[in-house]
Amino acid sequence: MEKVRREKWSENFSEWYNELIETAGIQDKRYPVKGMNIWLPYGLKIMRNIEKFIHSEMERTGHEEVLFPALIPETEFQKEAEHIAGFEEEVFWVTHAGHDPLDVKLILRPTSETAMYSMFSLWIRSHADLPLKIYQIVNVYRYETKHTRPLIRVREISRFFEAHTAHDSYEEAERQIREDLEIFDRLAKFLALPYIVSKRPEWDKFPGAYYSLGAEVMMPDGRTLQIGTMHNYRQNFAKAYNIQYETESGEHEYVHQTTFGMSERLLAAVIGIHGDDSGMVLPPTIAPIQVVIIPIPMKEADADVFAYAREIAEELRTAGIRVQVDERDIRPGRKYYDWELKGVPVRIEVGPKDVEGKKAVIARRDTLTKEVVERAKVVEAVRRTFDEIMENLYNRAREFLESHIKRVDTIEEAKAVFEDRRGIVEIPWCGSEECGLKMEEELDAKMLGIPYPEENARAPEGKKCPVCGREAKFIARFARTY
Amino acid sequence: MEKVRREKWSENFSEWYNELIETAGIQDKRYPVKGMNIWLPYGLKIMRNIEKFIHSEMERTGHEEVLFPALIPETEFQKEAEHIAGFEEEVFWVTHAGHDPLDVKLILRPTSETAMYSMFSLWIRSHADLPLKIYQIVNVYRYETKHTRPLIRVREISRFFEAHTAHDSYEEAERQIREDLEIFDRLAKFLALPYIVSKRPEWDKFPGAYYSLGAEVMMPDGRTLQIGTMHNYRQNFAKAYNIQYETESGEHEYVHQTTFGMSERLLAAVIGIHGDDSGMVLPPTIAPIQVVIIPIPMKEADADVFAYAREIAEELRTAGIRVQVDERDIRPGRKYYDWELKGVPVRIEVGPKDVEGKKAVIARRDTLTKEVVERAKVVEAVRRTFDEIMENLYNRAREFLESHIKRVDTIEEAKAVFEDRRGIVEIPWCGSEECGLKMEEELDAKMLGIPYPEENARAPEGKKCPVCGREAKFIARFARTY
Repeated sequence: MEKVRREKWSENFSEWYNELIETAGIQDKRYPVKGMNIWLPYGLKIMRNIEKFIHSEMERTGHEEVLFPALIPETEFQKEAEHIAGFEEEVFWVTHAGHDPLDVKLILRPTSETAMYSMFSLWIRSHADLPLKIYQIVNVYRYETKHTRPLIRVREISRFFEAHTAHDSYEEAERQIREDLEIFDRLAKFLALPYIVSKRPEWDKFPGAYYSLGAEVMMPDGRTLQIGTMHNYRQNFAKAYNIQYETESGEHEYVHQTTFGMSERLLAAVIGIHGDDSGMVLPPTIAPIQVVIIPIPMKEADADVFAYAREIAEELRTAGIRVQVDERDIRPGRKYYDWELKGVPVRIEVGPKDVEGKKAVIARRDTLTKEVVERAKVVEAVRRTFDEIMENLYNRAREFLESHIKRVDTIEEAKAVFEDRRGIVEIPWCGSEECGLKMEEELDAKMLGIPYPEENARAPEGKKCPVCGREAKFIARFARTY
Repeated sequence: MEKVRREKWSENFSEWYNELIETAGIQDKRYPVKGMNIWLPYGLKIMRNIEKFIHSEMERTGHEEVLFPALIPETEFQKEAEHIAGFEEEVFWVTHAGHDPLDVKLILRPTSETAMYSMFSLWIRSHADLPLKIYQIVNVYRYETKHTRPLIRVREISRFFEAHTAHDSYEEAERQIREDLEIFDRLAKFLALPYIVSKRPEWDKFPGAYYSLGAEVMMPDGRTLQIGTMHNYRQNFAKAYNIQYETESGEHEYVHQTTFGMSERLLAAVIGIHGDDSGMVLPPTIAPIQVVIIPIPMKEADADVFAYAREIAEELRTAGIRVQVDERDIRPGRKYYDWELKGVPVRIEVGPKDVEGKKAVIARRDTLTKEVVERAKVVEAVRRTFDEIMENLYNRAREFLESHIKRVDTIEEAKAVFEDRRGIVEIPWCGSEECGLKMEEELDAKMLGIPYPEENARAPEGKKCPVCGREAKFIARFARTY
């Protein structure tokens, strides 16, 4: 008896999303600077729950939290050539203070490599200082010229996560990338988000990186959203910022560096991927309110119903569940509407009959189905329902993702997939930049890269690159992206 | 048998403080922008513990957390005349993005009134929307031209707390100020910080405020440090930003507003006030490590000592105490030195004799005294010691504060107090700006204001203003300030 409707969600996702951000209390978009939005209390609470998980993963893996200034002197910013080239079009410049021009202009960090790495050269002296593993969650700034969209493409990313590490060898840096991928996987499961990882093509690496990995999810309109990146810098920044360490045998070597980045896009993915026409559907793991209890009074028996609701709430609270009783003086239907919009995973309805029969009605937000349970088993039923919701959200999203990845052999087949902007296509590719760029142009799509790990990236024997006709080396993924 | 030395701390506080910030791992001051420092992991952990308490107080009192953008358009910034006048000398200007000048220049927020209040005018419609109580902890920017000092006077305040409220009457705004004072008092007790509250003179109010309160602590060199402010704006900003609500009877009225501000200066106060020549002394409430256990092995009995230390640690951890065993392969004396510097409140030493006799030595950081306790009573002893430390820190600081407030009748007496820059003087004052400014000049000190609440601010009968000789209305406080 599934009653979930996902018409507007799938047919008109962009409008659905923009509306929801405001109606569900995530952000206010009316701030008078383009691409800069205000976090509202409810949205911020969800984001804080995501961050709590990130903090605990960072602690588990021995990263330490730091906070660097948001302003970077022009002189520091300009030490690594590729990095400047990649960002100079999109940095905000602080040129004056009070009434005076600054001696050295400052940029608002678009990311913190150039803020951090001259300090790394002071902090790192010997092999005993390695690995160095730090992270911060901060506001960063990018002068986006494309259409902006809350949480997804903004000029102020208020919740930007960046981990930076330094190691004594390429192998150790590679091990770090594997750890990042493992952390990312745990986080994605915590958010019930299936994803794919691709190794970006040379022309789309992070500016200054030796290679870049990107993790993508599939949004309802078939466009992909990058929600995590991992970069191996090799010794590139180490050379620009002179980050050397003394080896055990007394030589001086440059460190190997990596970064791992995420942002409030994680929340955009949760909202987009799990939602439906009634609003958000939050995974219980991050819902600020996991259970809302709606007392449904009849004229004669009000007191009992409210007392019963509060008693259940108290029991859930004691069990560590975030619960709220909605005692507002409005109709239950209106309450259902509000909490469905806000994505509360479980609703418990209690009326006089439930009090009498020692029962409660448990409604699931993800399926919009109901179940009657014994009063004595409410805690147990809620816990089980949480597990079922997590599983259902993940499976539903995985089916959606998998059914939107198509493997094709020709440009024409690929074009057909994109005709309704649906999904990812995988095409055999010779590996040359020329053919890659040509396909991007023909398909009006971005090459996400080749599947990672690279064992999965090899083209099957006999496949040809559809542009040059040569033997294909790789499978390349293309998508319309956010 | 108190062995605490406070010579350097009191004689050469400025140097003591600047050194400690780096040696104890609070901040790195070598970032290449003046007045902008890097939070190191240990310092940030302490600050996070302070913030956790603030978050829980905000939740307790019904404030909701939000996050506003850090950039404010020039046009919004310029709506309230006094406010601009107060800040225009010290704002950083963002004038360009990429290679282009911006159409509307942006300032980096020095505080968020002008970012928030045009949104308040959209959010507040009717009396039912009031009170509105929000807060955020964010980075703010002030182009300080005076000498900068970590956590105290900086160009980037990275941990700026600001609560903003709107009410339907002056009385409700006044009630909010009382709530702020109560929150502040609980926080100060949590940090073992005695303080005084003064109502600022007219010429030193927050720009745009109807009145301003400031909470000060006394630093070791006798200078005061403002660590909290509360402002009643009356309807001043409401008129500039058109924040009106509809009353129950259908009229439109401007709201009454207040703000409450604090910052990382809270940590500066903790470091300065509780410290000694061996380093920081952290209140157990905020210490990232509350107990450090030092195993003191003798050649024959190593394993026992380490196992014994870990066993005690496990027991403390289970009791909810933040504990660490220092198993580094260095001399115990070196370990004592490190942890004393970092202010860990309790050290437990265990040697072979303790293992044998089922004992442990508990050393207090605040008094540097030791006590032998039964193994079975370690948890209890640690808890009791925490209480004793909190009490001792508070009392020691209160005695220091109280002994540094002198009530005098003449400018000469006041000058004598300031001759060694020691403390606060209270002088009878007629209440005129002219005489107040004259005293500031003569004393080369700032008028903190009159004692708050104002019942305590009246001058005793017969006292004269030492400048004009008229009947004194108030007692005014003067100090050298940070």
